[in-house]
Amino acid sequence: MAGTSVGYSITLRVEAPATTSAAGELTGVIGRAGALVTALDVVESRSDRVVVDISCNAVDSPHVERIEKAVGALPGVVVRHVSDTTFLVHLGGKLEVNPKVPLRHRDDLSRAYTPGVARICLAIAEHPESARNLTIKKNTVAVVTDGSAVLGLGDLGAAAALPVMEGKAALFKRFGNVDAWPVCLDTHDPDTIVETVRVIAPVYGGINLEDISAPRCFEIERRLREVLDIPVFHDDQHGTAIVVLAALTNALRVVGKDVGDVRIVVSGVGAAGSATIRILLANGATDVIACDRHGALTRRRTEGNPFRSWIGEQTNPKGFEGSLSEALVDADVFIGVSAPNLLTGADIARMAEGAVVFALANPDPEVDPIEAGRHAAVVATGRSDFPNQINNVLAFPGVFRGLLDAGARSIPDSMLVAAARAIADTVAPDALNPGYIIPSVFDPAVAPAVAAAVRASAAEEAPA
Amino acid sequence: MAGTSVGYSITLRVEAPATTSAAGELTGVIGRAGALVTALDVVESRSDRVVVDISCNAVDSPHVERIEKAVGALPGVVVRHVSDTTFLVHLGGKLEVNPKVPLRHRDDLSRAYTPGVARICLAIAEHPESARNLTIKKNTVAVVTDGSAVLGLGDLGAAAALPVMEGKAALFKRFGNVDAWPVCLDTHDPDTIVETVRVIAPVYGGINLEDISAPRCFEIERRLREVLDIPVFHDDQHGTAIVVLAALTNALRVVGKDVGDVRIVVSGVGAAGSATIRILLANGATDVIACDRHGALTRRRTEGNPFRSWIGEQTNPKGFEGSLSEALVDADVFIGVSAPNLLTGADIARMAEGAVVFALANPDPEVDPIEAGRHAAVVATGRSDFPNQINNVLAFPGVFRGLLDAGARSIPDSMLVAAARAIADTVAPDALNPGYIIPSVFDPAVAPAVAAAVRASAAEEAPA
Repeated sequence: MAGTSVGYSITLRVEAPATTSAAGELTGVIGRAGALVTALDVVESRSDRVVVDISCNAVDSPHVERIEKAVGALPGVVVRHVSDTTFLVHLGGKLEVNPKVPLRHRDDLSRAYTPGVARICLAIAEHPESARNLTIKKNTVAVVTDGSAVLGLGDLGAAAALPVMEGKAALFKRFGNVDAWPVCLDTHDPDTIVETVRVIAPVYGGINLEDISAPRCFEIERRLREVLDIPVFHDDQHGTAIVVLAALTNALRVVGKDVGDVRIVVSGVGAAGSATIRILLANGATDVIACDRHGALTRRRTEGNPFRSWIGEQTNPKGFEGSLSEALVDADVFIGVSAPNLLTGADIARMAEGAVVFALANPDPEVDPIEAGRHAAVVATGRSDFPNQINNVLAFPGVFRGLLDAGARSIPDSMLVAAARAIADTVAPDALNPGYIIPSVFDPAVAPAVAAAVRASAAEEAPA
Repeated sequence: MAGTSVGYSITLRVEAPATTSAAGELTGVIGRAGALVTALDVVESRSDRVVVDISCNAVDSPHVERIEKAVGALPGVVVRHVSDTTFLVHLGGKLEVNPKVPLRHRDDLSRAYTPGVARICLAIAEHPESARNLTIKKNTVAVVTDGSAVLGLGDLGAAAALPVMEGKAALFKRFGNVDAWPVCLDTHDPDTIVETVRVIAPVYGGINLEDISAPRCFEIERRLREVLDIPVFHDDQHGTAIVVLAALTNALRVVGKDVGDVRIVVSGVGAAGSATIRILLANGATDVIACDRHGALTRRRTEGNPFRSWIGEQTNPKGFEGSLSEALVDADVFIGVSAPNLLTGADIARMAEGAVVFALANPDPEVDPIEAGRHAAVVATGRSDFPNQINNVLAFPGVFRGLLDAGARSIPDSMLVAAARAIADTVAPDALNPGYIIPSVFDPAVAPAVAAAVRASAAEEAPA
């Protein structure tokens, strides 16, 4: 069953002889084909034949073909249809837009639409700030992508990115009661992206950038922050940085080390890596080494590249030169936001006593977490099937809940640090252990705590 | 109570002596101030004092001040607070974005978001057409404005237009089960508007343009139809044209005339007027005279104006020259989509026997409908407080329901005519009379009938 996932669950509709052994034979052959049977329902039963729906979790589409073939090869069995649960969930999309006001009769219409609405329009024209109270701007965030870096899949384009943005919007509502709307842009040109977001901004109280490839994402974020009076958050950067810092805070509590004393090696200097480095430094880290595929970044190695020169200048104070594997020798913390299978257990074994390993590449981590666990004190991944899943869902709903509540106009680094501390602190001291450094994404205490921290941070920035 | 409206309903919280006559005095003084009392609730009662909430419908904001003053002048009465029901309805906006899929536990997340969603993204990248089934594109429409012609209020800008677009989106859901989203653009430049809508289009199955001033709206619509593969509807044009033709069809049934035989005078050649003229001609009208504020348009009078020359060429076959009032002599039909109080009863009296008058300027019609009713056989307005309200809500929800169901890519004129006939035909022959030529906006039969007509029209255009 290795690699089977509910994200790839299928249902086979099968016609079989009505014998006492039929069900057992069906589930048996599916199990031997490597799938996990999750349900069996009889749809139709006659004296000689039955029709059953068998649901199971598979690995990938060749695996589904093998399962279908194995079932169809049973004597007297016909596979009528194979349906894919994940596709069924997506039929017609995952969001809907609902009125919050009643529209039962003429009076409702007169208030929510014409003629009553005219006075609301005039009030906003006279006092533009009142749009934050009298329209959806109060609670609405745009989830903006150009589809250039969709999940780990690369440049799939705007239309193919939409299912992810819909999912993100659904999570915003579920965990933060934020109304989020997908904005998938059919362009890769930074000028057009910046101008489009500027032009559509009146409807929104915040912008969440998503799955835009580096280094364009840095420029787009910077320019949007200049032209807009609403907060701009890039989840791949800031969301990841927040949850990494939250997890690291608790991991260092577990191993009894201080962030100012540890050597941290970060693998990956894209959106997630550079933002993680930035938040670590803002939180007091002093000895950070950043590595790309060619090894440690130094002042010398980043010359001429404006997006890396900041990293080269701010990190690696001792000027270490060498590979990622070499950088790890005696390091206290490894944070991977890069690529699968870069390291082995032997690399982790050379780290300092009480090592902390965050291998966050998805779906396959930088190092096998079981291997890493033989040598490190704390291991975390981005995967849901290992302990300590580091997942942005812990950050973005609460962050925007707080931003919208506060009517905030910007997101200083100190606000990201405050959000991270709030997540870390939702794990009570007596609950903290090497297998539980970060709360579950379903912990209902997380988003309110993050929102409160963001509100407090916003109030400090702009006292009433 | 002339002019009071539920669109301007207020609630006064009043402290008054606890006497048996207090309530009567309060409602009496409000009634004498010209407001319509709709509710009275005791909020708090002590032996000597009561606190009551009195709701009433007012005319405008000076009127509210007069009411407040009159109530406060009663002996022993203190007005604590005046709240405006319409503003209360708008607090926090009128729309929310909800997930359609469950997000209860890890398995739900794995299907609706990562890792399951990745397969949906890949499927769309491989077969772009599948976005219409696997995303919200299937049921979602953008309600696009630049805020340049908000209701009858003029150029209020993008933010102040948002309450109208939210209301429109709410009506889309209520009457057509269409998910509509406000797109308020902070620009008046047609190039920027066209490019912005093109760039955001992947999320939408249709575009509804709204409250964009003429003549820019014509160019923007034309160019969007060229660059997009989804239908583009301009409600101020096409929505109005549909409901006008629907009402006219039934009005001519009432007076027993044929559209090919009647002389129709249209006042107003903006978005609504020009589209109305176009649909009338598409539906067999032969004798149409279009008037602007200077009188009848002729071939000669429209020279050099590209937006009016089409009208000048296609209408006024006899080359009539003169004022609107002169054009009405012996005319069968007047359709006003222009400005208040242009005509008197005397003008209507000079029309032909069995005259039809549609005075649609809002909130004040081209001619007083009571005056007009003394001379015309059928009178309709855009107002809800007279019979025969001609309201776009009858058209746009069903039109987009049909377009989305059919996966239509364009909106030919024949589709607008089909939608109009469907609306007209929802008034049964035995229900038809001079005071009931058009169904109520709350008639549940209308949107499904319009949607069916649009689907049938789309199937004719592009047979499967």
